[in-house]
Amino acid sequence: MTATDAQRNASEAGLTSALQPQAVLDAAAILKGAANRTPVLTSRELDRAVGAQVFCKAEHLQRVGAFKFRGAYHALSRLSSEERARGVLTWSSGNHAAAVALAGRLLGVRTTVVMPDSALPIKRAAVLGYGAELVCCPAAERENVGRRIAAQRDLAVIPPYDHDHVIAGQGTAALELMQEIEPLDLLLAPVGGGGLLAGTALAAGLKDTRSRPRVIGVEPAIADDAARSLRDGRIVTLDHVPDTIADGLRTRFVGERNFAVMRERVHDIVTVSEEEIVLALRWLWVRMKQVVEPSGAVALAGVMAGKVDVAGKRVGVVLSGGNADPAAVARLIG
Amino acid sequence: MTATDAQRNASEAGLTSALQPQAVLDAAAILKGAANRTPVLTSRELDRAVGAQVFCKAEHLQRVGAFKFRGAYHALSRLSSEERARGVLTWSSGNHAAAVALAGRLLGVRTTVVMPDSALPIKRAAVLGYGAELVCCPAAERENVGRRIAAQRDLAVIPPYDHDHVIAGQGTAALELMQEIEPLDLLLAPVGGGGLLAGTALAAGLKDTRSRPRVIGVEPAIADDAARSLRDGRIVTLDHVPDTIADGLRTRFVGERNFAVMRERVHDIVTVSEEEIVLALRWLWVRMKQVVEPSGAVALAGVMAGKVDVAGKRVGVVLSGGNADPAAVARLIG
Repeated sequence: MTATDAQRNASEAGLTSALQPQAVLDAAAILKGAANRTPVLTSRELDRAVGAQVFCKAEHLQRVGAFKFRGAYHALSRLSSEERARGVLTWSSGNHAAAVALAGRLLGVRTTVVMPDSALPIKRAAVLGYGAELVCCPAAERENVGRRIAAQRDLAVIPPYDHDHVIAGQGTAALELMQEIEPLDLLLAPVGGGGLLAGTALAAGLKDTRSRPRVIGVEPAIADDAARSLRDGRIVTLDHVPDTIADGLRTRFVGERNFAVMRERVHDIVTVSEEEIVLALRWLWVRMKQVVEPSGAVALAGVMAGKVDVAGKRVGVVLSGGNADPAAVARLIG
Repeated sequence: MTATDAQRNASEAGLTSALQPQAVLDAAAILKGAANRTPVLTSRELDRAVGAQVFCKAEHLQRVGAFKFRGAYHALSRLSSEERARGVLTWSSGNHAAAVALAGRLLGVRTTVVMPDSALPIKRAAVLGYGAELVCCPAAERENVGRRIAAQRDLAVIPPYDHDHVIAGQGTAALELMQEIEPLDLLLAPVGGGGLLAGTALAAGLKDTRSRPRVIGVEPAIADDAARSLRDGRIVTLDHVPDTIADGLRTRFVGERNFAVMRERVHDIVTVSEEEIVLALRWLWVRMKQVVEPSGAVALAGVMAGKVDVAGKRVGVVLSGGNADPAAVARLIG
């Protein structure tokens, strides 16, 4: 076996990654003018409370209300004109579905989205509003159903996280943050399937920003597969879909491509309790006047709950999304 | 009677104002570094929906969560060192109270705040948190109680709106908006006592920005004293404290100084229903991910409800504050 074969085999086994930081710069060039350059939010009170300087990248103000637009638009932009003409398919219960639907509308690509029967009506309406074709099926079946339809109709599949162009696109949020705020010592992102965390870690590896921050993932304690995977050196799969309030992070395992990047470039993954997520959500609402969804507040919860040593540091935090139901948020924080 | 006497008499009768646009520039110089330069928020969807370009000045992201910090800090900064040593007093249902309390803490001035028994707990807690002495009394009595305590203790009074330095300070929000976004055709602000609207109108009169926008006030229909005052050419007083959900606009009459500026410089005042305020609040929450209090959404409600002809125009809107209770907002928009 040659070195290249070994590398390919290791990569296919999810042990090393061919994805390099440059991919994030390439994605940023494609996303320019399409994705919002979201603002960076700060709070004197937060800084005092945690003894650090915290810079929140406001991806809840991204198009479709979540960072997912970056990866979806980037991935669709990379398709050949033949693939675009045939259309694309994805499966997702939430923000990635809306992101693919909007990216398709903007790029003139027909989109088919497989959602679980249990998806919130508001999320279904968003997908339909962007003009996607919607297929509903039992939650456990969505990837199988999606792959079967894609094969039947010859559609390109844009999976929610285990995809190089999706990962590179998600990394552009951290890239913008590092370009605007420098230097940063730490960079925190929530982790579900690992698209945002892997992209963030790639961005942190770029040599042409002044920062070389350590990258830390934050995960709900009751959905700690990523933390265990990083510790064990292999992808750990949860027995069941975890019932965290962070509905965007209810993944049973991280992607192989995502795990390969994480192993190489992520310093640590810490976990937060459901109560700690609620405290962060409440802080964001009451003090920073920002509507962030539970998943989107998980990285900040890691800082506020003291799960990461931030003392005296300059800390970037990705607020990853803001699609929440008013009544549900009120029940949590009211 | 000399021309100057006539002018002074007219001014004392609230018919003309000695306040000039330059006062806003002077206030801005004092507020630099103390007040947040708040961001300007936009939404493609909003622009499509109303057929205009709308630029929202995010004063809910101001210190204490409302534009009120500007006027309060400016007014306290203008006191003599003797007055500062004796301390200041104000009365307010909410945001002005917190603003005076924080300005006092920052400037080392003792503050006493008279609030109505009915003030929101979140607003009371803010005042106490900034170290003010809090006096509670029936809503209708607050000015009388405040003036009596001020006389007894020899405290300088910083009223919530009928005060030149307060008005000039509030105008700095519009000044920043015009400096960042130019040109603007229209500039909309909510009106309660008229501090923000008068300050906004003064700022719009400055000759050294590219914009000379028309200034329009927006008011809850069930608290329409300002609209009636402008129409009748005299200050109209409501019989009772209006029960609008916009709790920051529950004033029975505008200030004399405010009215004088409004007569000279405000193009129109339009009104919105309670339902229209809720629709704007809901839009801000669900689509723009911003927590704005009902009063803070009133000017945007005027645009969204079609009360102002904005077609094809570039429209500045002040989102004036964000201090709301999660459960209460959920009841309104959930």
